[in-house]
Amino acid sequence: MQIPSAFEPPQRLLMGPGPSNVAPSVYQAMARTLVGHLDPTFIKMMEEIKEMLRAVFQTQNAMTFPVSGTGSAGMEFCFVNLLEPGDEAIIGVNGAFGARMADVAARCGANVTKVEAEWGRIIEPSQIADALKKTRPKLVAIVHAETSTGALTPIEELSRITHEAGALLLIDTVTSLGGCPVKVDEWNVDAVYSGTQKCLSCPPGLAPVSLSPRAMDVAAKRKSKVQSWYLDVNLLSSYWGEERVYHHTAPITMNYAIHEGLRLALTEGLENRWNRHRQNHELLKAGLTELGLGIASQKGHQLWQLNAVTVPNGADEAGVRKRLLSEFNIEVGAGLGPLKGKVWRVGLMGETSNPRNVEAFLGAMKQILKK
Amino acid sequence: MQIPSAFEPPQRLLMGPGPSNVAPSVYQAMARTLVGHLDPTFIKMMEEIKEMLRAVFQTQNAMTFPVSGTGSAGMEFCFVNLLEPGDEAIIGVNGAFGARMADVAARCGANVTKVEAEWGRIIEPSQIADALKKTRPKLVAIVHAETSTGALTPIEELSRITHEAGALLLIDTVTSLGGCPVKVDEWNVDAVYSGTQKCLSCPPGLAPVSLSPRAMDVAAKRKSKVQSWYLDVNLLSSYWGEERVYHHTAPITMNYAIHEGLRLALTEGLENRWNRHRQNHELLKAGLTELGLGIASQKGHQLWQLNAVTVPNGADEAGVRKRLLSEFNIEVGAGLGPLKGKVWRVGLMGETSNPRNVEAFLGAMKQILKK
Repeated sequence: MQIPSAFEPPQRLLMGPGPSNVAPSVYQAMARTLVGHLDPTFIKMMEEIKEMLRAVFQTQNAMTFPVSGTGSAGMEFCFVNLLEPGDEAIIGVNGAFGARMADVAARCGANVTKVEAEWGRIIEPSQIADALKKTRPKLVAIVHAETSTGALTPIEELSRITHEAGALLLIDTVTSLGGCPVKVDEWNVDAVYSGTQKCLSCPPGLAPVSLSPRAMDVAAKRKSKVQSWYLDVNLLSSYWGEERVYHHTAPITMNYAIHEGLRLALTEGLENRWNRHRQNHELLKAGLTELGLGIASQKGHQLWQLNAVTVPNGADEAGVRKRLLSEFNIEVGAGLGPLKGKVWRVGLMGETSNPRNVEAFLGAMKQILKK
Repeated sequence: MQIPSAFEPPQRLLMGPGPSNVAPSVYQAMARTLVGHLDPTFIKMMEEIKEMLRAVFQTQNAMTFPVSGTGSAGMEFCFVNLLEPGDEAIIGVNGAFGARMADVAARCGANVTKVEAEWGRIIEPSQIADALKKTRPKLVAIVHAETSTGALTPIEELSRITHEAGALLLIDTVTSLGGCPVKVDEWNVDAVYSGTQKCLSCPPGLAPVSLSPRAMDVAAKRKSKVQSWYLDVNLLSSYWGEERVYHHTAPITMNYAIHEGLRLALTEGLENRWNRHRQNHELLKAGLTELGLGIASQKGHQLWQLNAVTVPNGADEAGVRKRLLSEFNIEVGAGLGPLKGKVWRVGLMGETSNPRNVEAFLGAMKQILKK
């Protein structure tokens, strides 16, 4: 065979639904020489990652660490550990990732009750309350920030009614973590997962997760073994815990990346970081209004970091994306499911969230839509 | 909290059971700027990775790609797709990774027949033939290169008797791929997985896998859904196939790494690479003999890339490893299971396999064992 030449990526401005742009010091971290996954220096770094992740998730949960897979592996980690065949689960479905959660839960053998909302709208507490009148689930799962629609579902009231019903609360914070408030302990969340490639601005490859002591207790007292060996928290807690029992070989370089990414987030300060994401969202929104464009997701619940921009009548949705990429080196995302062809998904996540990038995008759109 | 300082890894010579040292151009590849996982340039690179992996696995299998997890995720990928509850499986257990396969298969609901050999010895075809007289399994699984013992089990005869019995053959090549012959098509293997951090000399984080058309057919005709959404080959084949249906966000930087690692392997040439591993193994063995040390695994079946060096009577096994690391910056591995305290696992994998490193290790051992 003809051996391909070395890959030379184009210099994109990553304004889609993830990955987002990566900070220079994270690239530098990934180019550092490898150590073994049981090296004392790596083990010390694992401790630092856990501690920084706790700060970013705003939790004291001991079991807070990055799963060795992408965000979807984090989702699967939460479900496979908490659900057993025959368990009941209520799952909010208001976008692609809620639908994925329902699929994953069913593959664990759970009986899933879907609570649905139109894509772009939030899951209302009253909807969950109604479902809880009909079933006594082991857990309720909600997507905090729906990457497919740009809607942010508030968690506090949902958490209250979920716990009143004696269920665990599981939330997806893949797109929210690092870009807007995620308060695991204050909100009383039992299981949470995220990804590295959105508002933490690292490459994809790890899934930060956190389980409350209550969730850990459920996992420890299961009747059946966790169906995934790779994601079994009872094994992983010995590897990421004090015993350091060998489980799998951690993706070392990706851990270098998240270590640096978390350092950057905490050095900036979470409040500052959230404000930055809010401000650049408002800047984008003002500019969109000038262009006669709006945001499709529910008013009052629009994500700062991911904007579902309405495609105007007559515009060529895919053609605009293609021109943004080829003429301006700007990547934005397409709509999924019912929003396919109706929105562009414009991310302002992590490193990408700055005024210069907002202006670059607005300027490019102005040129493209005029013609 | 006190924000930790940036991680500055020590410069180790990685001579354990993996990860191995990484080539400079692979580090450079990982520092390249990120593109989106649906970027046309990334999609072209995915095709090149598949093509190069086929060359390295010596297969024409269409479904040949890197799973987005470490080697153990590759193991789980193979089992969850091929096994359903109630299926029969025969698994060779002659080390830690055979034992892990049996655990993973049981978590798929399979009835597992273990065919065991002493750690350090190979699984004999006659043992599998005997087991096949008592059960008609859906698959037979064997570890080609046991990372925990340094034994290499020949595959060809096992493959013949497995297929005569109408079963699929699954093999673990985590430590063999890139360091000694792995001939998927010639050996008629149906499912194979590997890792990036051994003889491919990339950081851990991806698991190259390949499924034969027969295995793909079994996965497509399952009665039940694959229990893992993340590892479901029926979904992954649409993402890594021509349709490019979004599944998960691939670990982009790790794919940059494997692209470069495969390029290096194919540029060197597989035969040359295997010979290099053999030669450095022989160099090590000759040096060990001079030091009065031997290799614990079965004669005639010793791996070139991983050497289970017998700890001499009276030597402090852990103390020697500690001194190698702290005084010489050389990492070697401990024994696992029944070999704990009895062997050092000395890897000569990928980049690490060169005469200079063999001499550095032997020189260090000479100094340490004298005192």
